[in-house]
Amino acid sequence: MKKNYSDIVDPIHDFIRVYDHELKIIDNPIFQRLRRIRQLSGAHLTYPAAQHTRFEHSLGVMHIASQAGKALNEKGFLKSDDIDLLRLAGLLHDIGHGPFSHLFEEVIQQKKFSHEDFGKEIILKSEIGDILSKNGYDKKLVTKIAFGDLKLQYMNEIISGALSADMMDYLLRDGYFTGAEHAQIDHKRITQSLDVHKKKLALERSALYSFESMMHSRYQMFKAVYFHKTVRSAEVMLLEALRLSDDEFGFTSFNIKEFVKLTDEYVLSTLILSKSSKLKRARQFAEDYQNRKLLKCVFERILTSRTNLGKSRTDELRTSISKKSKVDESEIFVDSSVTPSIPLAPSKNESKHIILISNENGKSTAQEMPISQIPVVSAISGFMNILRIYTHQKNRKKVEIAAKSILGGLK
Amino acid sequence: MKKNYSDIVDPIHDFIRVYDHELKIIDNPIFQRLRRIRQLSGAHLTYPAAQHTRFEHSLGVMHIASQAGKALNEKGFLKSDDIDLLRLAGLLHDIGHGPFSHLFEEVIQQKKFSHEDFGKEIILKSEIGDILSKNGYDKKLVTKIAFGDLKLQYMNEIISGALSADMMDYLLRDGYFTGAEHAQIDHKRITQSLDVHKKKLALERSALYSFESMMHSRYQMFKAVYFHKTVRSAEVMLLEALRLSDDEFGFTSFNIKEFVKLTDEYVLSTLILSKSSKLKRARQFAEDYQNRKLLKCVFERILTSRTNLGKSRTDELRTSISKKSKVDESEIFVDSSVTPSIPLAPSKNESKHIILISNENGKSTAQEMPISQIPVVSAISGFMNILRIYTHQKNRKKVEIAAKSILGGLK
Amino acid sequence: MKKNYSDIVDPIHDFIRVYDHELKIIDNPIFQRLRRIRQLSGAHLTYPAAQHTRFEHSLGVMHIASQAGKALNEKGFLKSDDIDLLRLAGLLHDIGHGPFSHLFEEVIQQKKFSHEDFGKEIILKSEIGDILSKNGYDKKLVTKIAFGDLKLQYMNEIISGALSADMMDYLLRDGYFTGAEHAQIDHKRITQSLDVHKKKLALERSALYSFESMMHSRYQMFKAVYFHKTVRSAEVMLLEALRLSDDEFGFTSFNIKEFVKLTDEYVLSTLILSKSSKLKRARQFAEDYQNRKLLKCVFERILTSRTNLGKSRTDELRTSISKKSKVDESEIFVDSSVTPSIPLAPSKNESKHIILISNENGKSTAQEMPISQIPVVSAISGFMNILRIYTHQKNRKKVEIAAKSILGGLK
Amino acid sequence: MKKNYSDIVDPIHDFIRVYDHELKIIDNPIFQRLRRIRQLSGAHLTYPAAQHTRFEHSLGVMHIASQAGKALNEKGFLKSDDIDLLRLAGLLHDIGHGPFSHLFEEVIQQKKFSHEDFGKEIILKSEIGDILSKNGYDKKLVTKIAFGDLKLQYMNEIISGALSADMMDYLLRDGYFTGAEHAQIDHKRITQSLDVHKKKLALERSALYSFESMMHSRYQMFKAVYFHKTVRSAEVMLLEALRLSDDEFGFTSFNIKEFVKLTDEYVLSTLILSKSSKLKRARQFAEDYQNRKLLKCVFERILTSRTNLGKSRTDELRTSISKKSKVDESEIFVDSSVTPSIPLAPSKNESKHIILISNENGKSTAQEMPISQIPVVSAISGFMNILRIYTHQKNRKKVEIAAKSILGGLK
Repeated sequence: MKKNYSDIVDPIHDFIRVYDHELKIIDNPIFQRLRRIRQLSGAHLTYPAAQHTRFEHSLGVMHIASQAGKALNEKGFLKSDDIDLLRLAGLLHDIGHGPFSHLFEEVIQQKKFSHEDFGKEIILKSEIGDILSKNGYDKKLVTKIAFGDLKLQYMNEIISGALSADMMDYLLRDGYFTGAEHAQIDHKRITQSLDVHKKKLALERSALYSFESMMHSRYQMFKAVYFHKTVRSAEVMLLEALRLSDDEFGFTSFNIKEFVKLTDEYVLSTLILSKSSKLKRARQFAEDYQNRKLLKCVFERILTSRTNLGKSRTDELRTSISKKSKVDESEIFVDSSVTPSIPLAPSKNESKHIILISNENGKSTAQEMPISQIPVVSAISGFMNILRIYTHQKNRKKVEIAAKSILGGLK
Repeated sequence: MKKNYSDIVDPIHDFIRVYDHELKIIDNPIFQRLRRIRQLSGAHLTYPAAQHTRFEHSLGVMHIASQAGKALNEKGFLKSDDIDLLRLAGLLHDIGHGPFSHLFEEVIQQKKFSHEDFGKEIILKSEIGDILSKNGYDKKLVTKIAFGDLKLQYMNEIISGALSADMMDYLLRDGYFTGAEHAQIDHKRITQSLDVHKKKLALERSALYSFESMMHSRYQMFKAVYFHKTVRSAEVMLLEALRLSDDEFGFTSFNIKEFVKLTDEYVLSTLILSKSSKLKRARQFAEDYQNRKLLKCVFERILTSRTNLGKSRTDELRTSISKKSKVDESEIFVDSSVTPSIPLAPSKNESKHIILISNENGKSTAQEMPISQIPVVSAISGFMNILRIYTHQKNRKKVEIAAKSILGGLK
Repeated sequence: MKKNYSDIVDPIHDFIRVYDHELKIIDNPIFQRLRRIRQLSGAHLTYPAAQHTRFEHSLGVMHIASQAGKALNEKGFLKSDDIDLLRLAGLLHDIGHGPFSHLFEEVIQQKKFSHEDFGKEIILKSEIGDILSKNGYDKKLVTKIAFGDLKLQYMNEIISGALSADMMDYLLRDGYFTGAEHAQIDHKRITQSLDVHKKKLALERSALYSFESMMHSRYQMFKAVYFHKTVRSAEVMLLEALRLSDDEFGFTSFNIKEFVKLTDEYVLSTLILSKSSKLKRARQFAEDYQNRKLLKCVFERILTSRTNLGKSRTDELRTSISKKSKVDESEIFVDSSVTPSIPLAPSKNESKHIILISNENGKSTAQEMPISQIPVVSAISGFMNILRIYTHQKNRKKVEIAAKSILGGLK
Repeated sequence: MKKNYSDIVDPIHDFIRVYDHELKIIDNPIFQRLRRIRQLSGAHLTYPAAQHTRFEHSLGVMHIASQAGKALNEKGFLKSDDIDLLRLAGLLHDIGHGPFSHLFEEVIQQKKFSHEDFGKEIILKSEIGDILSKNGYDKKLVTKIAFGDLKLQYMNEIISGALSADMMDYLLRDGYFTGAEHAQIDHKRITQSLDVHKKKLALERSALYSFESMMHSRYQMFKAVYFHKTVRSAEVMLLEALRLSDDEFGFTSFNIKEFVKLTDEYVLSTLILSKSSKLKRARQFAEDYQNRKLLKCVFERILTSRTNLGKSRTDELRTSISKKSKVDESEIFVDSSVTPSIPLAPSKNESKHIILISNENGKSTAQEMPISQIPVVSAISGFMNILRIYTHQKNRKKVEIAAKSILGGLK
């Protein structure tokens, strides 16, 4: 039976086909809300064109997941119904994101929540879940694929991980809208070259160059955008404002009705208009952010370690810089930005190898290639851990001296 | 003397060089505000990626104006100082835009204001003007060029009109961010081919193809985006909400301090949160807009006339459709979208010809080529006048019948 | 059963999937020969990068025909086996082209041959046909689709005509390699929107903009490239050289073994190295072409008529210009370049309308839209008939005066 | 004084401005000849679209060199006249290339010649030099800059080396025409960010990302194109054919008149048509190349060493494989492809560092950054030395066994 559909125009994928049951989800206010959550929080203060949102990205992930599904279906690994599930999982994988996406994530993490938890809640218990059920889809199954909990590992990996629709769409999209990186991720080649080995997602060897180029682009995006000094400055300020207003907004006491209101501009303008004295400091951060009066970076170090400093070490560092500089602790911001050289698997474990399939003379052989043997990728590892100290302009000199004296020898 | 500058990354122009005095203007909250005014108001409900703002566009116009200035400087028509003025005029040409840009314009027009009036006010009387003066620039001169009032016509025409930096940037940018039109306006070729004849801006004949292609792209953008049925539906709703809340926000009683607050999301969320019973209807429009419950188009006609229906004719039409359909007038929305086949000159007069310069065997001859002789452009004229009737879903059938019976014969 | 394939990298389509039986055809010397026949004969003397050949184009047509076939297969108009036939027809549609493609065509036309005749001969009687048969394909069927002779009209129309794979690939490819036109033909949108009505190829109405843009790009390509004054000058010279050496090379006494040798550079270097006095004049044209000493255009007129001047009228014109100018007839070259505003149907008849399909609320209606009602397309008609007079530099002045005096009033 | 110019359309640079004296050089048959020498010799047998030639590339290098010159002129390092010299050096830097470019180079190297030697000869002693002199340019100066012999090192480095116009154009162009690599080298950013330190070319630190991305693209191009297994197979065959016919064509007994004839297709078709028994083997290679019957790669190893195996070691290897496999030496082809991780300096020495300039708070500091500290670049080093053994299909098995047994342990 022919399903009804519409085509949505998108600069990354030309047009994205959307079936009627998907359109019902998209047109729901819970999903429309994603139009008001920027994909890259504070990056547009540095890259002015980066105004794109989680909304378009979600459509894009659905689109790429669909292409990946079709390729695996043609190779006999998937049923045609599974493509529908992959599409829905892709569409909904970010539905639990709050204002300022990953910054909101950092705030709720401190109370052991994640956007995945909120996402599950929304899919299972809101109108979104009802639409799924009414149209004959198993909402639990969609949730499992969207958040990496299915037993068929390769289904999860189509949504998140080193070969995922999520990553391919955000790299393409963030590159396109920031203008920072022109590399066109060859996502068509990669999705066409997906394969499955022992229930895990694999890649045809002939697409290894494309994978390597994608990993290099990812690396460049981290350096040029995600971990950019000024981008992080804006985000440190937003993060502080969010932390200081958690009680006010009830970020972590999840309630769908309230949650749906929480968009980037709503949080900012509520803070700015608030008269509450408790929110004074949060308000100041929001105003400064809005007027682009950013914190200054007084110290930067690329660490060779693969792990985050951790909260206790960070707190310690803040205290000692404060003591040495005689600047109040609340004026010292320690930012530790870390990412593994290739994305985490859906299980949140580090990916140690990629499975390559060679098809020669009719026979197919699989090889687990350690990441360390892919030259460009291995070169990158260890270079994505950046420690920075920020402060307001007025404390610049003092904090700089203290930070250098304390951190001088750190590697 | 070398001037200090920064480079801002932009997907359209790769990077945009910004000199220090320009950065001071850009970093002022009055200018930062443009980051929160979308270039295409309600178009992102149809083209989800169209989240770009007047901020990036203003930088882009400065950039192209600068290129045009350099080309004319090399040909001996401009001094190097004039390039600085052109840059500033380009940067500030949209500074008077209010929330939802051209929709706001439609509201204030009813009180005989325009964004140019507000723009002049801002440049001459706010901190923006002070920055100009302090850095040795004549703010009156910048205002004249920005808004088409200089005697040297070609300076104005670099900012607005059929060969302008404004149009080239918005066509490129709107095409890029909507994804609707892939034609790359060959702006480098056009700016390199600018010339001057009797104080008017002219074009080298060898660039006529590029001009024709640009006019075709403009036409496609009007059909596919600016006058798109669903885009206009969202905008009719926004327009109604703005009109109904003019008193509340004081849109037309211009006051810089208040004006600076007025951004797209501020107006929307203020309306949505408002408890005022006077704003009930405006609030409903804002909410429906936000949740993408749009008005339905029940009648559409491409008119061959070159002029707008006018307010009295529009009102009349609404009344007669209301009578015939027995649906309240307030539920009937008459939308008349008109644009000339090539953009208005800075003087707001219709452009009737384009001046072409032929350089052959060392001698240069000018020719005024009537628009009607450029095949593609002449073909377009008269095709950009669209009359549409919108109403809410519930009145759809009744209004459709009435509109067809009344407008059946209209051409 | 999974068919074996390779992927060939192509800048236009990223990569082109080629199945093993197709690869056997491609790797045959008869097909490899296409690598040495430039797509645009003499255009690279004006657009230096236009070195692309019929070889890549043929792969591209196969690729787009395959996409069109898949779309119609999903909509239930085609069987999966028909896609294979469309691919082969696309791959082989240009196999009969001789050196300098369409110029060779002009030479053999005088003896009532066409590249289609040679193409049929090659597919039916050479190793190419054997490969088809051995792999289970009906070579007669492939020939019919490739050259517009099948009864199911829409199958022919996928290969040639106003919605064809041939046109989409050459516009994209010629634009990309010349650098002349940046419009990206939205071929994916168009192939996805193909439909069938009464055995004819139709287009979903929602893709009408894409069709219009494509027609505009085609028009620009004719003006900027195919009918460019200097491009035609080079081609007039090549044409003359080919005519003068027909006996030598036996162009029109078709013999596969000899035909396979005839490539652009082979013909040129054979002429240049030839000592034969009979070929003196042809040799001179070849040498001048190679060293870019081109004929000069002394007269150009855009005619409003839709038809070619015809051979007798052309000859007459040459004679009268010769008499008036006292320059030998052999030194006067009359070039009449004509193309209809939209491409001919596979039957070689003029296309008078395009069939549009509207799918609304579940029902589908077809409409035959006259070309004259599509504004941009109708505007173009009549503008693609250009008459030019060329001569050598030394006769320039005399021929110019004579041509102007004789043709002054012609429209 | 305004200089007369034409604009040549080019897909990489939109359009390339060419001044009249440059056009005279370009229109000379010695330069026109470059249209018939493919940029990438045999790569089009693997990447069908790679038909581009040294002609377009030479125009492109002139264009980028001009941009680099302008940037340094604005920063006060160059006079405006120097830009003219840089343009001419860029235009002529490849004028000494013979058929199949770098393969021809490998043949003449054995007699201690290089294309630079031939280039000097042509510029100083042919009509090219006369045109330079007549137009007031010092041909010796142009030669020095074109081939790296000027004392002002940074002038040479604009033409060749790690920041050169040559490399930027060929990476962009080869990527565009092969379709293999989509990374757009950000050449505008890099040329705008050039600086000079102690007479050496330097780069503003803010453009380091762009440099790194360019080096990564270069690496990908080597892996995907220049050193591609099948590309090299075609080239090994061409190389063999060239070596075997050196006496016939007199490649190394340089004579301008003869040299000008030597183009890719001329050499191939002369060989194929030759009846000489001495050329039998060369003829067979030419025919097989033309019909794409390529040598097979039976062994491949990526070496960690930075140096080429050298001729004696290569000969030795061939002998021992021949002995072990009992296949004639003439049937065993040892191909050693090596390139440094960043391009050689104009002096042909390895580049060990790149000079970075930081401009902060008005003061400028230079730093020599060792290549080994740029993560992606250092990762690449040592990975561009590939040893391969090729043979004809019929000897495949025997040679494979012998090669593996002999080279098994080689690193």
